[in-house]
Amino acid sequence: MTAIARPGLYGVSVGPGDPQLMTLRAAEVLRAVDVLALPRGERATESHAAAIVSAVVDTATKRVLLLPFATAGGRDAADASREEIFARVAEELWAGAAVAFPLIGDALTYGSFAYLLERVRERLPHIPIEVVPGVTSFAAAAATMQKPLVSWDERLAVLPAVHAGNLDELRETLTTFDTVVLLKVHRCVGAVLDILDEQGLTGGAWYAERVGMAGERYVADVRTLRGQPLPYLSLLVVRKEGNA
Amino acid sequence: MTAIARPGLYGVSVGPGDPQLMTLRAAEVLRAVDVLALPRGERATESHAAAIVSAVVDTATKRVLLLPFATAGGRDAADASREEIFARVAEELWAGAAVAFPLIGDALTYGSFAYLLERVRERLPHIPIEVVPGVTSFAAAAATMQKPLVSWDERLAVLPAVHAGNLDELRETLTTFDTVVLLKVHRCVGAVLDILDEQGLTGGAWYAERVGMAGERYVADVRTLRGQPLPYLSLLVVRKEGNA
Repeated sequence: MTAIARPGLYGVSVGPGDPQLMTLRAAEVLRAVDVLALPRGERATESHAAAIVSAVVDTATKRVLLLPFATAGGRDAADASREEIFARVAEELWAGAAVAFPLIGDALTYGSFAYLLERVRERLPHIPIEVVPGVTSFAAAAATMQKPLVSWDERLAVLPAVHAGNLDELRETLTTFDTVVLLKVHRCVGAVLDILDEQGLTGGAWYAERVGMAGERYVADVRTLRGQPLPYLSLLVVRKEGNA
Repeated sequence: MTAIARPGLYGVSVGPGDPQLMTLRAAEVLRAVDVLALPRGERATESHAAAIVSAVVDTATKRVLLLPFATAGGRDAADASREEIFARVAEELWAGAAVAFPLIGDALTYGSFAYLLERVRERLPHIPIEVVPGVTSFAAAAATMQKPLVSWDERLAVLPAVHAGNLDELRETLTTFDTVVLLKVHRCVGAVLDILDEQGLTGGAWYAERVGMAGERYVADVRTLRGQPLPYLSLLVVRKEGNA
């Protein structure tokens, strides 16, 4: 029995990688829609959403829109591809289709759905929209490591990218927050480890890369990361020791 | 067909309330285990986990441990009930059962699983443990509001409770972060709204209460909250306007 989806746009968070970590609603929507909007591309992060979707739905039974990957190249470079994505999706929405746009992790937490959501809302205000929330990479990594992110009255900060220009901000954030999640830490993990050493936070830190994907890796002793080349999908969690 | 779970402890995040927002893995584990450890109690937050679980599994087919609610009364008052919970769960684990402990939202993001996880790991080191991550209340609220939490290089802060003693910290956090999620904002929403006005952040804020539960409510114009009594499960999200 296949449910039929109401026409409209569905931003479907599919979780960090393991298809079992998408929600019941996400699986239901992916199975019920007419059209799957999937990013095409050769980088691992690009084909990843398609691979997760394929685990719960036979994509041969759907119309598949192969779209350019929107976030490659940063904000400016992405603009043209965003317009192209909107145009392709809008055409299907005008025709009355139910279109699912799958997103790694959670759609609205560093997801690449916001630009499409905004364009559809502004330019096609009659089209119904549903956003299905999802599990973030850092929640999934904490579950695998079996380490609490935050408890009780602890304060959580998530910093999306650390680079040479914002190390002072990092230093400050580490002093005022109980737990700091650093995403895409690959660019200057050496400098980050120096700061953790300075502040006596090395022992409470752990690291994960490619969470839920092929080649995922977890590191409990972050000191061993020094000098290692790290991938783009790398995250480091610092929690003050003594917090239980 | 019912899968059989490997003996051990399962910390199962069930999402913020709507049973459809638990993961495929969470539903699978809840259906496969021998024992469900459910909090007993009369407050809405206490019986809530049980209600979500009942939506995906016939609890009459399981052994149900009715346990005291661990977080009532703060850290100290909770200690006795935590020990009792550990003792009751440990008895089942020793007997070789697969025990699921459901948790609202995400188990390790302000969840009440950390204390049990730690006790089982220390005192029953031979028992396998699995933690299933979940969707947080604030990710689900953002999806319902269709508003991005963070995009691109934006910095996210989550503050678990605002009270008269930490308003200066709030002021500081609002200046240095792009998005600030305030949980349990019920105690001093008036003071928070004053600070948002001071900093010109009122227009980019929105509010949600009882996300995914009976009586859930979303408020786009937070100025209307002044003078209203708010429930414990209340959250306010502040995002700097102009971020897209």
